[in-house]
Amino acid sequence: MIVVIAGGEADRGTDVREQMTRSAALLFGERGFSGTGLREVIAHSSTPRGSIYHHFAGGKAELAREAIRHAADEVAAPVGEAARGGDPVAALHAWLDHWRGALERSDFHAGSAVLAVAIEPEEQTGARAAAAAAYEGWADAFAATLQASGVKRKKSARLATLTVAAIEGAVAVSRARRDTVALDQVGRELEAAISAARS
Amino acid sequence: MIVVIAGGEADRGTDVREQMTRSAALLFGERGFSGTGLREVIAHSSTPRGSIYHHFAGGKAELAREAIRHAADEVAAPVGEAARGGDPVAALHAWLDHWRGALERSDFHAGSAVLAVAIEPEEQTGARAAAAAAYEGWADAFAATLQASGVKRKKSARLATLTVAAIEGAVAVSRARRDTVALDQVGRELEAAISAARS
Repeated sequence: MIVVIAGGEADRGTDVREQMTRSAALLFGERGFSGTGLREVIAHSSTPRGSIYHHFAGGKAELAREAIRHAADEVAAPVGEAARGGDPVAALHAWLDHWRGALERSDFHAGSAVLAVAIEPEEQTGARAAAAAAYEGWADAFAATLQASGVKRKKSARLATLTVAAIEGAVAVSRARRDTVALDQVGRELEAAISAARS
Repeated sequence: MIVVIAGGEADRGTDVREQMTRSAALLFGERGFSGTGLREVIAHSSTPRGSIYHHFAGGKAELAREAIRHAADEVAAPVGEAARGGDPVAALHAWLDHWRGALERSDFHAGSAVLAVAIEPEEQTGARAAAAAAYEGWADAFAATLQASGVKRKKSARLATLTVAAIEGAVAVSRARRDTVALDQVGRELEAAISAARS
């Protein structure tokens, strides 16, 4: 069922499962996996109590897996769009801009839902493999962009992993510092590394 | 009061406050800040119930601040020791080895207590500034090592931030994947970036 809420927040015109997934992705990113209760997801998504187990029979673990897929797409979409021009530096900047915007709009509360799940044990999250798949998806896509621009295959794979790890880490450092200096510095160095690898 | 426990685990011959701090650093790293209850810290440190508020009047937030200082030192000590030789690549490898060892010894459960606090809001942790200080301490020390080896000041600062962010991120990716491939790849690329900056 598609419920269109006119005049509401952007992108709220989606079904209940989708609303819960979006809220979970946002809250896991902001407050951590264990720091986010299902009650908060329900309240944030303005969905009916009890509907979580209707929509996510696997409970919080299934919700986390869906939230990770959603969070992974939120990065992959703008990065992939920018990568279509063939310039890996443009794709890098789309990635950095995604986080710079999210951090600034949220007063440095935004964070990575993938990271939030990755840093808690599987016994707690039940979503470790989804986090690994998200990291692999980002790295493989960026490695393909690097390779298409002339970087050798193994170097592309290493640089792509560096980019994933450094951006995930820089978002955490930026949150702790409450400024985007770390993201800016990491961006400059990644750009230099990519340019050096292409020449 | 110093309680020496003969024949116990290494480094357990310390006072109760120190035992709680160590357990908190380990558990926050493994299970996240909100994913770790005070009861688990008490159980893990084999310290008496009720003694947390005796030793940490500021409760979990004060414990988190101490745990971050402890976790920061656990990285800074081997990296600083290796840096004394003047080679930033040796310092980098001491940093990577610290995490490779911790991940492998713990079946990929080990994690960064600093990151665990950095990715939850100040309202939850009460320890944001301590996380920021830990990141700044690591970056400043590594930047000084880079600069002493011939890298320009601003470049040293950027490369040091990249190193902090990439290693913190790579530990999370390694945990999600349950292998050290990300840490190895990030290490290779950081080494290349440092070598290029020195030449």
